[in-house]
Amino acid sequence: MCTLLFMATSFLTPGPSELYYTVADHLKVALREHVCEISHRSKAFQQIMAHTTAQLRELMGVPDHFHIAFTGSATEIWERILQNLCAETSFHLVNGSFSKKFYDFARQLQRKALKYEVPLGQGFWPHEIDVPAGTELLCLTQNETSTGVTMPLADLATLRQKYPHLLIAVDAVSSAPYPAFDFAQFDTLFFSVQKCFGLPAGLGVWLFNDRCVAKAEQLAAQGHSLGTYHTIPSLLSNLQKNETPETPNMLGIYLLGKVAEDLNRRGIKTIRQETDYKASLMYHALEQHPQLSAFVGEPTHRSRTVVVANVLGRPAADLLALAKAQQIIVGSGYGSLKDSQLRIANFPTHSKEVFEKLADLLLAS
Amino acid sequence: MCTLLFMATSFLTPGPSELYYTVADHLKVALREHVCEISHRSKAFQQIMAHTTAQLRELMGVPDHFHIAFTGSATEIWERILQNLCAETSFHLVNGSFSKKFYDFARQLQRKALKYEVPLGQGFWPHEIDVPAGTELLCLTQNETSTGVTMPLADLATLRQKYPHLLIAVDAVSSAPYPAFDFAQFDTLFFSVQKCFGLPAGLGVWLFNDRCVAKAEQLAAQGHSLGTYHTIPSLLSNLQKNETPETPNMLGIYLLGKVAEDLNRRGIKTIRQETDYKASLMYHALEQHPQLSAFVGEPTHRSRTVVVANVLGRPAADLLALAKAQQIIVGSGYGSLKDSQLRIANFPTHSKEVFEKLADLLLAS
Repeated sequence: MCTLLFMATSFLTPGPSELYYTVADHLKVALREHVCEISHRSKAFQQIMAHTTAQLRELMGVPDHFHIAFTGSATEIWERILQNLCAETSFHLVNGSFSKKFYDFARQLQRKALKYEVPLGQGFWPHEIDVPAGTELLCLTQNETSTGVTMPLADLATLRQKYPHLLIAVDAVSSAPYPAFDFAQFDTLFFSVQKCFGLPAGLGVWLFNDRCVAKAEQLAAQGHSLGTYHTIPSLLSNLQKNETPETPNMLGIYLLGKVAEDLNRRGIKTIRQETDYKASLMYHALEQHPQLSAFVGEPTHRSRTVVVANVLGRPAADLLALAKAQQIIVGSGYGSLKDSQLRIANFPTHSKEVFEKLADLLLAS
Repeated sequence: MCTLLFMATSFLTPGPSELYYTVADHLKVALREHVCEISHRSKAFQQIMAHTTAQLRELMGVPDHFHIAFTGSATEIWERILQNLCAETSFHLVNGSFSKKFYDFARQLQRKALKYEVPLGQGFWPHEIDVPAGTELLCLTQNETSTGVTMPLADLATLRQKYPHLLIAVDAVSSAPYPAFDFAQFDTLFFSVQKCFGLPAGLGVWLFNDRCVAKAEQLAAQGHSLGTYHTIPSLLSNLQKNETPETPNMLGIYLLGKVAEDLNRRGIKTIRQETDYKASLMYHALEQHPQLSAFVGEPTHRSRTVVVANVLGRPAADLLALAKAQQIIVGSGYGSLKDSQLRIANFPTHSKEVFEKLADLLLAS
């Protein structure tokens, strides 16, 4: 008699990452309920939009004066934020590839883009940040996916207090919904769904408050072009009908609502506790191992959702292969750090068991 | 004993429309093969991109000097075309809501947008079109989804001959891959996948030739901002690696490749013949019926892929309900024509049988 033991592959990659474990079932229901076939102007789709928005509001505690819009990617949202919220000068905190790209976008859009840059693996200290007068928009990456550096929530509060008149944009691509954000501390926040939400890529989620709406309207009144279909006024007038300007990624919006509902059922407190447990486990393993160490020196700047490790004395590829042999796919270092680092995603779909298995595997290597 | 007869619902709506009948199976394989979980910078995803591109080239006869890029929607492509291919003056043939929106986008981007507009339900005669000198870009909607008006391919050729130095942009959102396009007759063409390809919405396909690349490079060299990640140079440098600038709708790109492969297996000639047959059947039914008529008077301007009917003497909603009772969902008229028209999609996934059934149903009503 032959016994086949099916070992599912775990994708502990920082994005795209492992699908949330309920996605396959939701896809089946979506097909049965014709989610991809109904009109994007139908009542049925408006109900899907309303459901997804309500579940996100509950999960992340999004207040009413924040609007929730959908785009094709978080990359698109960098562009839309600059087009809608900044006519002249933006200021960027840069400490990795993604925060750098946000800054690059501002330059490509011919804004006066200023930056305060620190070396890879480092975070920011609010008292060292000096935003010049005349800046309209402060852009920061709350969780830098390329390096695993995070900005503690208390520092967001300090920056808000220091610069109450600035619009503050928060890139939470690879952290939301883990951080317990206080929405009073910023004006716009965005993320993509292929990270912590465990969904197929192709959807960006853009939250912006009424100050952003006022700024966009002011720029438009002054004769600035904000873009076309994905301007704040265009998105907003469609959101009021639970619609989108274009035919959107309807399946993506549906799946996001379903997975947000699953996460709400599990409870955001539980998810945060489990995320903390898995992160502690992994950082502890890195401390124990003679050839591994946390890339981010300052403990308060270490991301809980993207753990980045330096590998000494051997190629990082050795450890990737070791994990892969056990059906665990770990992310490689980003860009120039590809050969000397590991990036381990710690998202809600990743179980404690797979983290324990990976930690044991690394410690035994 | 109880016999349950399962009647599948047919969506003869002009987009989103019925999924191509192989999509559910392709989704299952996509999950098994981790299409949503692999890196968008991996060799595995590069192979998916290469496969989709190759299948589209085969299906539509796309020559090598045309590049195939992916966006979030065809709506996005209106914007990208204007940003990349027109610094000052665009000229638009307007005869419905979608061609009008393309024109509106040019105004919103502060281009000098000119238009030649004809009433709803009418098409264009090339000799009546007069594009002023100094125009950079001629934008036309080969198949106006809102009214079911098409531009015959011979007229594309005439326009090309008349204006050899103009860049010509062709919106084929609800016709591709049905028309046997001659790619010498235009410089850029685009479509979305939730129409004739029978795929979930959330992906736009943008084809542009080397003249477009040269124009975009020229505008950039002159100091114009082309945008950020979805500029022609950025898309192109990523396409050379079979990649995209952002994390794209990977599942959508995968499914497009699989359905294009299915269509190639069926044969584009067969698909075109079947489309012609179904269109003739429906237009014939409209002629027979005392209360129905083709909205488009000029036979050569009648779309084969979106058949639009006037309903006289009773609300169009009556007929929609009649069809719905037989599990056939027909599209309503667009905008102000909602109550007095039907729009019937005729895409590759729609069977001859369902067209025959609907024609019989209408004739008996």
